[in-house]
Amino acid sequence: MIRWNNDYNCGAHPVILQAFMDTNGESYGGYGMDEWCERAAVEIKKHLGGADADIHFMLGGTQVNYTMIAAALRPYQGIICADSGHIQVHETGAVEHTGHKIHVVPGVKGKITARAVEREAEDYRSSDIPEHVTQPKMVFLSFPSEYGTIYTKEELSDISRVCRKYGLYLMVDGARMGYGLGAEGNDVTLADIAAAADIFYIGGTKCGAMMGEAVVIVNEELKDHFRSYMKQNGGLLAKGWVLGLQFYTLFRDGTYFDITERADRYAMDIRRAFAEKGIESYIDSPTNQQFLLLTEEQKEKLAKNHIFENQFQTRDGRFCVRFCTSWSTKEADVQALLRDIRAL
Amino acid sequence: MIRWNNDYNCGAHPVILQAFMDTNGESYGGYGMDEWCERAAVEIKKHLGGADADIHFMLGGTQVNYTMIAAALRPYQGIICADSGHIQVHETGAVEHTGHKIHVVPGVKGKITARAVEREAEDYRSSDIPEHVTQPKMVFLSFPSEYGTIYTKEELSDISRVCRKYGLYLMVDGARMGYGLGAEGNDVTLADIAAAADIFYIGGTKCGAMMGEAVVIVNEELKDHFRSYMKQNGGLLAKGWVLGLQFYTLFRDGTYFDITERADRYAMDIRRAFAEKGIESYIDSPTNQQFLLLTEEQKEKLAKNHIFENQFQTRDGRFCVRFCTSWSTKEADVQALLRDIRAL
Amino acid sequence: MIRWNNDYNCGAHPVILQAFMDTNGESYGGYGMDEWCERAAVEIKKHLGGADADIHFMLGGTQVNYTMIAAALRPYQGIICADSGHIQVHETGAVEHTGHKIHVVPGVKGKITARAVEREAEDYRSSDIPEHVTQPKMVFLSFPSEYGTIYTKEELSDISRVCRKYGLYLMVDGARMGYGLGAEGNDVTLADIAAAADIFYIGGTKCGAMMGEAVVIVNEELKDHFRSYMKQNGGLLAKGWVLGLQFYTLFRDGTYFDITERADRYAMDIRRAFAEKGIESYIDSPTNQQFLLLTEEQKEKLAKNHIFENQFQTRDGRFCVRFCTSWSTKEADVQALLRDIRAL
Amino acid sequence: MIRWNNDYNCGAHPVILQAFMDTNGESYGGYGMDEWCERAAVEIKKHLGGADADIHFMLGGTQVNYTMIAAALRPYQGIICADSGHIQVHETGAVEHTGHKIHVVPGVKGKITARAVEREAEDYRSSDIPEHVTQPKMVFLSFPSEYGTIYTKEELSDISRVCRKYGLYLMVDGARMGYGLGAEGNDVTLADIAAAADIFYIGGTKCGAMMGEAVVIVNEELKDHFRSYMKQNGGLLAKGWVLGLQFYTLFRDGTYFDITERADRYAMDIRRAFAEKGIESYIDSPTNQQFLLLTEEQKEKLAKNHIFENQFQTRDGRFCVRFCTSWSTKEADVQALLRDIRAL
Repeated sequence: MIRWNNDYNCGAHPVILQAFMDTNGESYGGYGMDEWCERAAVEIKKHLGGADADIHFMLGGTQVNYTMIAAALRPYQGIICADSGHIQVHETGAVEHTGHKIHVVPGVKGKITARAVEREAEDYRSSDIPEHVTQPKMVFLSFPSEYGTIYTKEELSDISRVCRKYGLYLMVDGARMGYGLGAEGNDVTLADIAAAADIFYIGGTKCGAMMGEAVVIVNEELKDHFRSYMKQNGGLLAKGWVLGLQFYTLFRDGTYFDITERADRYAMDIRRAFAEKGIESYIDSPTNQQFLLLTEEQKEKLAKNHIFENQFQTRDGRFCVRFCTSWSTKEADVQALLRDIRAL
Repeated sequence: MIRWNNDYNCGAHPVILQAFMDTNGESYGGYGMDEWCERAAVEIKKHLGGADADIHFMLGGTQVNYTMIAAALRPYQGIICADSGHIQVHETGAVEHTGHKIHVVPGVKGKITARAVEREAEDYRSSDIPEHVTQPKMVFLSFPSEYGTIYTKEELSDISRVCRKYGLYLMVDGARMGYGLGAEGNDVTLADIAAAADIFYIGGTKCGAMMGEAVVIVNEELKDHFRSYMKQNGGLLAKGWVLGLQFYTLFRDGTYFDITERADRYAMDIRRAFAEKGIESYIDSPTNQQFLLLTEEQKEKLAKNHIFENQFQTRDGRFCVRFCTSWSTKEADVQALLRDIRAL
Repeated sequence: MIRWNNDYNCGAHPVILQAFMDTNGESYGGYGMDEWCERAAVEIKKHLGGADADIHFMLGGTQVNYTMIAAALRPYQGIICADSGHIQVHETGAVEHTGHKIHVVPGVKGKITARAVEREAEDYRSSDIPEHVTQPKMVFLSFPSEYGTIYTKEELSDISRVCRKYGLYLMVDGARMGYGLGAEGNDVTLADIAAAADIFYIGGTKCGAMMGEAVVIVNEELKDHFRSYMKQNGGLLAKGWVLGLQFYTLFRDGTYFDITERADRYAMDIRRAFAEKGIESYIDSPTNQQFLLLTEEQKEKLAKNHIFENQFQTRDGRFCVRFCTSWSTKEADVQALLRDIRAL
Repeated sequence: MIRWNNDYNCGAHPVILQAFMDTNGESYGGYGMDEWCERAAVEIKKHLGGADADIHFMLGGTQVNYTMIAAALRPYQGIICADSGHIQVHETGAVEHTGHKIHVVPGVKGKITARAVEREAEDYRSSDIPEHVTQPKMVFLSFPSEYGTIYTKEELSDISRVCRKYGLYLMVDGARMGYGLGAEGNDVTLADIAAAADIFYIGGTKCGAMMGEAVVIVNEELKDHFRSYMKQNGGLLAKGWVLGLQFYTLFRDGTYFDITERADRYAMDIRRAFAEKGIESYIDSPTNQQFLLLTEEQKEKLAKNHIFENQFQTRDGRFCVRFCTSWSTKEADVQALLRDIRAL
């Protein structure tokens, strides 16, 4: 059985394990005050277009998301998010648990729009008794989105412009950042994200690391006491260098970008194979997550050799399923899947 | 100028002030441990169809709502609410501030439906990884709704049935309870609400009292340590008897019901007058809140003598405005308004 | 039976009831946007020594305390409080419920000391890894204290000086403010408190009002969106004018100060009577709360005609009990108590 | 320079890295639903004396502690903790951030006592108005304590008995569990802890793993929806098997116990060497953390070759410093330290 159900089912890229071996005899300072975290930050900053960012290493998207929100918002403030946003649908109310309302707006193909953000901000601005409602103060988006779609540079800067107009922080969930950056047709760079966003994170767990995410804080206002927020929210790791080391290893020579780009290419191969069989995508994703609409028969046939994730059933009886490639996807497995698709 | 903008712009029914005078020479036990709270509970219980309820007196709808929710839910649990529900739209994120997600479902004329509740409960039941989402565990509805509409006895028991099927608590916000009960065509009694709901409150602030709401806890599971929740949430009044006294005074002889029913009748007079002029209601409300669609000209004419609340502008350029009657509405003011409507 | 057990067992000073009567025919704007709140603010400001304060009306000490704290602190910040402070011992963890740690320091006769505050602030400043501890950012004190003692002007300004040195906000719980100001030997004025504190409240509930407390925000940083915090925490009353009206009534002619000063004098009479019988005070209080050490026999004798509050038993078997006078204490009741004390 | 400043400055025991290598070609189910978590649970259960426990894998003591507390307590409930307890002094108010009060009691040599717990429970039971205070519902202790001391089996069962008498949950922070179990003179086993506690964790991060802690839930009441709490609090790792694998590897053949016991022996060697030089311990610890009282001169001499943690300065001018051994401590480093101590 080959697993395509997610992009976090394998350990780590071999260079990561090698780095663990190479450093295992050494000892380091605790809580992220160490040379690897420093060196990783240096490597990451090379991609930020000169932004004067603070960089911290944490672990797990849910934790990173609610910690960034907890650090940015006052109790009466909320965060605007598309209806498909991860913080809204898959984090067990972690944002509300930290005390903040999510202002849900309709997403378009998994993406939030500048217009929806503007409407929400205008609604607040025009409320008669603003103290009766929460103030939208932050905007959440995922790059790529939960449906694998990506924002164009123009979309991103439109959203950013609206955010600045209304004094909203823009945060970007980059759990799958590498897959977004490496997508065919993508015109967004990390530097663009650093320019558009106030705070974001670069995911490692799903992009070659064993675990870890790099939080990048661009906006000066959000830097203050961030380590206190990390600790209070359980995200200040005693062995922080283990995370820094992984990011350094993936970034020093571009491995991070290469392995995710390759996964995107595999995903395109798979999408094309489905399309050639007349099998539709539920949504047009240029990244490593592919959402296909299968008949029950197709689903069962593929399930013989492949593990993939069932999303939901459509009204016409088909099944929307997710196939993910990842940094760990093997060429041979792709070929096996392509054969099985062609044989449907 | 006559105020129709809300139903809380006057002090208290004269019997309340009289009760204050009559008792002002006495001294009472603190924190709701007094004879008036006891006697008020006795009076209220006469209307509950024999339900073995705990009754507490608090003050202010927002506080009552979030305290009831805080007492009922565990951190991973959320509350289902119509998109127009008060806790969702007008309480400054107080529910999220206590740590709970609101599961927003589409309302129909301001009301939540049994079907929407069932769908939400089924969604959770069928989730593959339920630990990634919050568990809907409570249902919120207002009687009457925020748009003045009321639930029929059948609708209420349908919702209640679904709640019990899925192990959901039903809570009823009764800020305007009297106006719902007194509405023409209403077939719901307090006893029906006590039978359908697990916890609810009977509003005093908008229904003749100077201030105060009576919390009624029917479900045994929700009774435990409720006073601790009240105190922790700032709702255990030192002079609790001041609230008990008001409820006793309004309930001992049915004043509560009489004065709200009268306000409903006035509202019907006003609605009819508008209708006779061809002025539509935005929503068909049988209670004291009337939502009318006025042209700019009509709005301006009425604004000369009357204060009413602007809600929003419709696409065709009309204004949805709210006129409220209340226990304090005077016959002469109604006549003045009717004249002005007829003169439009 | 005469109640001395607390200072909130009677309704309201007659002038308050009269004010309710006088205004009951009128209608007012909601949520504290009304002429009475405005006029009350004007009256209160006359006592603030020219401080440019924002004034809001809320209800209940617990609610006021945690709302002020929630508005002032970020999640990683805590509040320094004496071990006998009300927020630490009698508010059901409301401060922690809003997410903040209380840094408890030893009190001296119910009072916090500048030295204890400084030590706590220094500890934080010198911590090696400050992100592992909460940052003390606010200091809580009650004037008068929970044991009835008062701060001298010098003590207050010492504490204030330390607060400013370390960037700490000073908040003052003035639930019994009138009794503190009116105490024999007191050299502190409201203007002194406004000069020393960043935020404080003037209690009405225990000082002649039926209910209500006036929040005074002196520090510009704490003014922002305070009404949003009030609403989110259940403290923005629909009929806000009912609170404003009471404060206006008590302040316009000094009634607030007169009636609390009288209660202090009664308390001194009672203390002297006890002292003349050789009955010790547990703590030397110049205000309306008196803590006496009675033998079991004395306690039982007094309990025949008087209700007072048992605090705890001392090691030598005596009982520490609390007798409170208040604005509502009657001369005749004082005489009765004095007689009974003398007859012990 | 040799690091003795903490027990988390090295990566992982070689068997852990080997296990990473051995499994890196495989793919696994997400979120702890995998064979390694299962197998690790089987191994751990062999030590629990037959307790029917639920076992979960998380990461980081702070996160584990507040998640266990959040899962166990209702909002009006608090946790009893010694004044030196980790949740009280070093977790940035994480417990309060989840909304709960810590009832601080005096510790004795870093340990909580059955008597202090009983007193706190009795205080609540005897309160006149229990709704004005938080209900102590859980007891926190660390084994070994933050000062390296250990509880005897008798002390542990005394505390457990008091907990059961008053309906309190007992939770044990076992961040350094291995060092406690392996201490000379220790008479407590994991089975004893499972019998005494309701919920506890076995630390991996400080005991040979690269990272990870195993939560053991013994009390049926605390098992419900624990995975939801993990997710909401950022502790449900996508690659959960990475944690399970480590625990399996350390437990399958007793490595966990061997390597921590060895560290304890090294610590005893070091303590003896200090004692022979007449250098006192601040506290008598039989485990891997040693707290010594050095003169400034001694401190400076040792600081030439060794890194250790400064705790505080005593009144007589000496410095309390911490030397930690750990699973990664090398024999040669111990010898070097012993030589330097002898040369003081």
